[in-house]
Order: sequence, then C-alpha cells, then structure tokens
Amino acid sequence: MQPKMTKRQFLQSIGAVSGVATMYRSMNALGMASPTTAGTTQFQLTPASGYGTRVVILGAGVSGLVAAYELSKAGFDCTVLEATGRAGGRNLTARSGDVIREEDSRQWVDFDAEDHLYVNLGPARLPYHHTAILGYCREFGVDLEVFTNDNRAAFFHNQDRFDGPVVARQVMTDTRGYIAELLAKAVNRNALDSELTGEDKEMILDLLRSYGDLDPDDLYVGTSRGGHLGPHVHAGLAPGEVNDPLDLSQLLRSDFWQYKLHFSQFLDQNPTLLQPVGGMDAIVAAFEERVESLIAYRCIVTSIRKTSDGVRIAYRRRRGRRSVLEADFAICTIPAPVLRDIRNNFSPETQTAIESIEFSKAVKIGFQAQRRFWEEDHAIYGGISWTDQDITQIWYPAYGYHREKGIILGAYIWDPDPGLRYSEMAPSERLQAAIAEGELIHPGYATELESGVSRAWPKVRFQRGGWPESYEPPEQLREPDGRIYFAGDQLSALPGWQEGAALAAQAAVTAIHERVMMT
Amino acid sequence: MQPKMTKRQFLQSIGAVSGVATMYRSMNALGMASPTTAGTTQFQLTPASGYGTRVVILGAGVSGLVAAYELSKAGFDCTVLEATGRAGGRNLTARSGDVIREEDSRQWVDFDAEDHLYVNLGPARLPYHHTAILGYCREFGVDLEVFTNDNRAAFFHNQDRFDGPVVARQVMTDTRGYIAELLAKAVNRNALDSELTGEDKEMILDLLRSYGDLDPDDLYVGTSRGGHLGPHVHAGLAPGEVNDPLDLSQLLRSDFWQYKLHFSQFLDQNPTLLQPVGGMDAIVAAFEERVESLIAYRCIVTSIRKTSDGVRIAYRRRRGRRSVLEADFAICTIPAPVLRDIRNNFSPETQTAIESIEFSKAVKIGFQAQRRFWEEDHAIYGGISWTDQDITQIWYPAYGYHREKGIILGAYIWDPDPGLRYSEMAPSERLQAAIAEGELIHPGYATELESGVSRAWPKVRFQRGGWPESYEPPEQLREPDGRIYFAGDQLSALPGWQEGAALAAQAAVTAIHERVMMT
Repeated sequence: MQPKMTKRQFLQSIGAVSGVATMYRSMNALGMASPTTAGTTQFQLTPASGYGTRVVILGAGVSGLVAAYELSKAGFDCTVLEATGRAGGRNLTARSGDVIREEDSRQWVDFDAEDHLYVNLGPARLPYHHTAILGYCREFGVDLEVFTNDNRAAFFHNQDRFDGPVVARQVMTDTRGYIAELLAKAVNRNALDSELTGEDKEMILDLLRSYGDLDPDDLYVGTSRGGHLGPHVHAGLAPGEVNDPLDLSQLLRSDFWQYKLHFSQFLDQNPTLLQPVGGMDAIVAAFEERVESLIAYRCIVTSIRKTSDGVRIAYRRRRGRRSVLEADFAICTIPAPVLRDIRNNFSPETQTAIESIEFSKAVKIGFQAQRRFWEEDHAIYGGISWTDQDITQIWYPAYGYHREKGIILGAYIWDPDPGLRYSEMAPSERLQAAIAEGELIHPGYATELESGVSRAWPKVRFQRGGWPESYEPPEQLREPDGRIYFAGDQLSALPGWQEGAALAAQAAVTAIHERVMMT
Repeated sequence: MQPKMTKRQFLQSIGAVSGVATMYRSMNALGMASPTTAGTTQFQLTPASGYGTRVVILGAGVSGLVAAYELSKAGFDCTVLEATGRAGGRNLTARSGDVIREEDSRQWVDFDAEDHLYVNLGPARLPYHHTAILGYCREFGVDLEVFTNDNRAAFFHNQDRFDGPVVARQVMTDTRGYIAELLAKAVNRNALDSELTGEDKEMILDLLRSYGDLDPDDLYVGTSRGGHLGPHVHAGLAPGEVNDPLDLSQLLRSDFWQYKLHFSQFLDQNPTLLQPVGGMDAIVAAFEERVESLIAYRCIVTSIRKTSDGVRIAYRRRRGRRSVLEADFAICTIPAPVLRDIRNNFSPETQTAIESIEFSKAVKIGFQAQRRFWEEDHAIYGGISWTDQDITQIWYPAYGYHREKGIILGAYIWDPDPGLRYSEMAPSERLQAAIAEGELIHPGYATELESGVSRAWPKVRFQRGGWPESYEPPEQLREPDGRIYFAGDQLSALPGWQEGAALAAQAAVTAIHERVMMT
C-alpha cells in the first residue's frame, strides 16, 4: 500500500525528473523544442499616465468599451457618447421582454423567461486564438463554454440534390473517402512519380488508406465512420452494415464543398470556439460594470471637429437638447456607414477612406421551439445545418441541452441579395419566409415554433450593416486625423469579430498614450 | 412600427406557410425528404409485468444500474450484488479526498476541493448518437456540456520529427493541402480520366482548390487556415504572412496520420461529444438515487449456479460472512476477466466464451496544475495533444475554463506494452514517468504540477482491465445459460462505452421480461 502522498511529497517525488525538466527548459530557451504558442495577453497602459488628459470616445460598442476601460485604468478622463440606450453595439443578446428596434419596426421578444432561452443576434463565437477578447473574459471572470460549429449529426441541404437533407457525417466521410481513393489510384498508376519518390509513394498510400478508410483494394466502399444502417447510427450490440456512400457525382454537383464542407477548417471557425455562458452580452455587462459611469447614453453625435489643440463633439441628448463636449483626443468607433453622414472637418483622405468601407447585409432570426426536436429526433447537439436557400444556416443552441424548450437560429444571412431582401421585409414576413425554408430541413418545423425575432443589421439606425466587407481596412484610418483616432472592427483585418474591435481600441489608446507621454 | 406579436399571433402569422408544412409532412410520410434520424429513445418494459419475479443482478456498474432501474420500474423484485463499496464500476471520477484502490496500492486524491478540480478516470465522453445513455441523462436531468476531442491549438508530437511538437491546426491544414495539390496534379495530367468524365473533372478540380485552399496554379503553398506568422495566430489589425507549410516528407514520416489525424472522423469520436457537468459519475449518482435501496454493497460473489428453476448466488459479505441468494433469474455484468475465476456451473460453451474475452490494459493519469498553462500560454481550451511516447495523449479539461487551477489528463494509455508496464509501476513511479514524458510536450511541465493520481485498470481487483479488446462479442453469451443472462459492455459492439453497457442491460431485461410474459 502506498502512503498518502501530500503535495510536498509529490513535488519531492518528481525531483527525479527535474533534470529532464531543466534540460527541456534550456532547450526551449535555445529555441529548440518550442511549439508555436498563442496565449491570452494582458494589455496594460502605464498606470496614472493619463491624468489631466481628456478623451471622448464615440460609441459604446466593444471597441468603445475596451478604450474606455483601458484609458480610465491609466488615469485618463474619459467620456463615452453612446447613441442608443444600451452598450454593446452589435453585441446583442435577445431575451424575454426585450425590444428589438430597427428603423421602421419594433419587435417585442416573446421568448419564455428562462436562462437558456436567448439568442445572440450579433457575434456568437469566440475563437480560441482571439486572445485579446478572451483575455478580458478571463480578467473579468466571464464564464465560458464551448460553441459548436462542426456537428456531424447536422444536415447539408441542396434543393437540387439527394432528395432532401443529408447528414454532415456522411457528406464529410464520403468526400474524404473519394478523394483518398482517387489519389491512391493516381499514385498506383505512377501519375505522381515526379512528386513522390519510392518510399514517399508507399507512405502516402498508407496515409490515404487511413485518411479515407479504403478497402484492401484501395477503393472507397463506405466505412463505419459514416454510420450504420438500422436503428442506431452506432454499432449497437452487434456490428451491422454501414451506410452506402453518397453518390460522388451528386456530391460534386452539390454546393456543399464550395466552402460549407470546409467551414471549420477556416482559421476563425476552427475548434475550439467558446461562448459566454448565458449570452454573448455577458462581455458587455462585464465592461459596463467597470465603466458605466463614463457612458452617456442616448447621446447622438451630430458633428465631429478637429480644433487647434483637441476635438469638439456636438451631440443631441434626449428631448432634442444640444450639447458640445471638448476634449484633448477622440476615439471614433462609429461604424463607417453611419459616420459618413455625420458633419465633420476630416481631411478629404479620411473622408474617402470612410466612404470606402462597405458593410455586409447580415440578418439573423431566432425562434423559440416548444420542443428541442433537433436533439430528440436527430441527436443534434449544437452546430449548424447548411442550405442553399436564403436562410443559409440553421444553428442549434450549444446550451440548455435536454431542457424543455430551446432557441434556434432559423436564419443567418449575409449574402447581399437575400440579406437586403430579408431586411426590407416586415419582421413578421421575415419569420414566415424563414419558417417556410426551414420546413425543407425539418418537416413539421412550423408546428414546433412558438415565437420569433429577427435582426436585420442594415436596418439598424446606428449600425447600417453587419460588418466591413473587406479584410483589409483602409491604411488612412490607422493614423489619426488631427487628434481624432479611429477604432472598431472596421480598423482591423478581423471584420465582424470582437477581437478586431478590441485590438483596434488597444491600438488607438496606445497611440494616444504614446503621444501624451512624448509631450 | 410592428405591433407586439404574441405567441398566438405568431402561430396565426405562420398560417401562410402551413401549406408548405403540410406538404412536407406528407412527403415525409411517403419516405421522401426524410433525412436519416437518430433521436434519444425511451426504453420501457410493460409496467407491473414483473411482480412476483425475483432477479439478482451481479455488479452495480452502468449495466447493472440500468438493469436494476428498468426491472424495478416494471415491478420485478431486484437485488444488485456489488463487490465494492461504490456503484459505477469503471465510471469513476476522482476528486479531492477520494481513495483510489488497486490490488497493491491505495492513492489519496490530493486535488483542491473545488467543483472543477476532478478527473474522469474511466469513460469521459458521450457521443451524440449514444441515445440510450443520453436518454437516461435526459430523463434524470443530468446536465451536459460539450467534450472536445478536436482542438486545433493542441499538439502533435513525434519524437523523431519536426524538432518538437507541432500545432494540430498546421498538421491538419497542410495534410489537406498536400492531398488536394497531388490529386489536382493527377487530374490535370489526365491520370483519372477513366473515373472522371469532362464535367466531373472540372468540378473535382474546383472542389480540390477549395478543399486544400490551393493557389491559382493549383499548388499548395500554405493558407491562412494554418495561422499567421507574428504575434497572433489570427490576422490581427492587418493581414500578415501565413505560416509556411510543414514539410510533406516529414509529415509522411511522422506517425500522425496512422490514426491520430483522423481521430475525430471515427464514429465514436465525432463531434458533438458531451459530458456531464461536474464529472461522469453524475450518471451513476442519478441511477443510484433511484435504485440505491436495491444495491447490496461489499458483497463479493463466490459462486454462480443454475438451479432447476432459477439461480443460486453465493457471496461473501463484510467480515467474511457468507450468504446465499436465490432468485428466478440472474443478470451477470461481472467483467469476463473476473467472472472466469468465479466458481460456476455454466455450460462448457459459456465458459469458453467468457474465457475468449480479453480486456485492454488501460491506464489514465490525472494531474492538478497550479496554473492553466495550456490556456494561458497556448490558448488550448480542451482537446487532446498526441505523442508517440507511452503516455499517448494529454487531455486538457473541457471545463473550468479560465479558473485558477486545472486538472489535466497526463496519460491515457491503452496499448498493451506501455499499459502493462505502467500498471506494474507503483503509483508515484507512474506520475514521475508521465511527467518526464509530458515535459517533451510542455517544457516546464514538472514545475506546473501539484499532485497526481493514476488508475491502472488491469490492477483493479473487480475489473482487471479497461474494456473488451474485440468489437465482436461472443454470440454464445447473447443467449442465457439456463436462467443466467449476461450483460455489460462486453456483450456489445461498443466495448468500453456506457452505451454498450446500457444496451446490453436493456437486451437482458427485455429477454427476461419476454420469458416471464410467456409463462
């Protein structure tokens, strides 16, 4: 019998391997044995460096909140002017009783009042390498859980193929299988002898057999990876027949592989993805808790002017009262489609840059279902079904598993044509249209749904779109125009991501901080 | 402005699409437009059908618990004889203060007493299609969360390749890229013209360009999918250079692709995988709550005998007291390596079948780390790093993200050679060996770890192994020997999975039920 091992004894007992540890730390210091790393980072301006400097921040979205938090920590005197009655901007979670306002409509969210009955109508994912925003989650104690993109039980649906939706598991397994079979044939026919020398040739054949689960003749004839015929997907009590492979010609003629099949290969969609427990706006709430006193809500900026030694911001408060705020610096996070219509004395180059930024026509629709039919009937726990219809995607909630009801995302549209078309519909029409399309994925859909809410970002007064269409922000806006700095995800190569908003804010406050330190 | 839409109005408003709904339900009834489904199932014997029938169940693991629960619900008079002081069998979660017993050792678990500081030393995953066990989770209200296998931030490590661990994201992206490039070359060289006709040829080239993210010359030269050079993995404020592809020849000479690269393609490892919040033994606790009064703990079965009209089980209680229990039927879930040494009057065929079942040499080791260095330094949230060393895997916890400390699984061994070798070590030696190996993945590992616990299943008195090595259970044991029925995952094609244990139990109770109903 072993004696009880205390922590101290444990540490002593591993003394035997400390030589190894030391050796590897030395190797690491020499740049050997050092894997690529990407940890959460802690951003920090010099404490107390900002005393006496006034900064006005335009917009209390994620970028504005980050700027306010970092500047106020360093002693800057900050004010955030926010046009609406809430912080967060596009970070928006809808729950029971919320009112969703657009330019010509209001929707009351008629979900039941339960903690798992919400839908993120703006950003909904935190990729693992978005270390700035995850760093704030860590610092603020925002609880995280996994968000699922890639669920092999979900469906691929192309209206002209396969007579209905097909299970992702089969699409993915069979595509791999056919690719492996075809390449193995080419290798066996010596078609790649100029690329693959003797030993490599045998090795790649071995790799392909394993990659696609080929049969002894290097043919793809189906595999247990695609699931079994009969009552279970799995093998059950006795291994049964596996599903026949999907037809290659149909697979090639579907639109699955144009990007949907590779979606989780994309860097921003790679597992692990995370989400705050209880809704994405937990991040907003955590920032607000720290900077709420700095935010002036319902202040609509009407003019942005550089002055000889600072900035002058005019804005309209409730009941139309007009005010002016002067400061040493401004950080403008207002989305370009809104900003371009605000009076200003920016340089012509700045104005051109702002006008060059186009925002996407993103629409999201959430439905409350009386029953989690996707779990009960299809064993779908989170993830995405894809369709070539306008709704593009159906998202199943990666929270509240096995509870009585659930909220699904019944549409996530970003292509301009359906996006604008859905935006122009009245909210009730959007729901009807999305339900009609969802019926082709889930027959009986209409009878399962109890209420719905939509968000057409192009119709949102102080947003006018989902996110910048370009991954290359205009260089011009990286530099200040006088003492006006620009931020928001529109200043990053991560459009639509809170990480881009946070990094742009950190860059702006760093630049202001450096300028202040130099004077 | 839209009026408030109540649930009733919502239902009326979708009347417009009810024609579509009806049409699709009709199509579904005709077998059209019907995707493969796999929902949670509710198992149920005829209520009150068992009154007056006594069943003794041997073993209170998952299979025994399912049998006891289902039989008692149907009115059978059940007793479960359990050799140890706890239910659950191989479903074992270790927490602060637990004692982990093996044949010649005892370990006290010296983790801190916090709800996220635990490790599942037995089963740890619930695949989405394991609908029997998930059905019980649903019925009992066991909270579930996502378990992550496939984390692209984790590492692949082969001691002879790449001078250290490489990030999974790059291994997977580059392997896809090279496969796509090679197949595109073969197609362009007309090497597959007998398989791919004109239109298919163009389509598969398009597919491959997207599959591997090939350049305009159909070459794989790296992609943003593999991450960027510089301080971030992601694109940051301006899109930068992407990582160079890993060398194909090294990839081919690594052991990554032998199965590790495809791990999450396997049916049982496919996303979505789930786990109970707070530890896998939440499932045991939920069953125990319902059948605890039926379980006789610390009763070691010493003899199993068929009689002319039932069964007679001899067992030894605490302090060596001997007892005998007679019943109409027995369900024996005792693992074959243990069962084969218990006196019995089974038929020779039954005995041969029991002796044919070999169990794996599985070992798991958990460590408490003072700091979640995998999250802080590498942005690894859950998932698995792979190595060709004995420890085989390091699992990062898919729970307690961003908390102060964490429990990692520092080894999950199942190959017989290292499995037996680790089993024969004293617990403190196992920890030392696993730490030394972990240092090659995480330099500085030894200094981050505070305490550890191991479970060598071959050394566990009433288990003697991890799970049956064969996926084809012996046919002989599917039939009863007299009135003795066999169960456990060893009776399923899902060895080592709780689903197999549950299905085998359901099959046994169904068979007993049918036999009772026929008399």
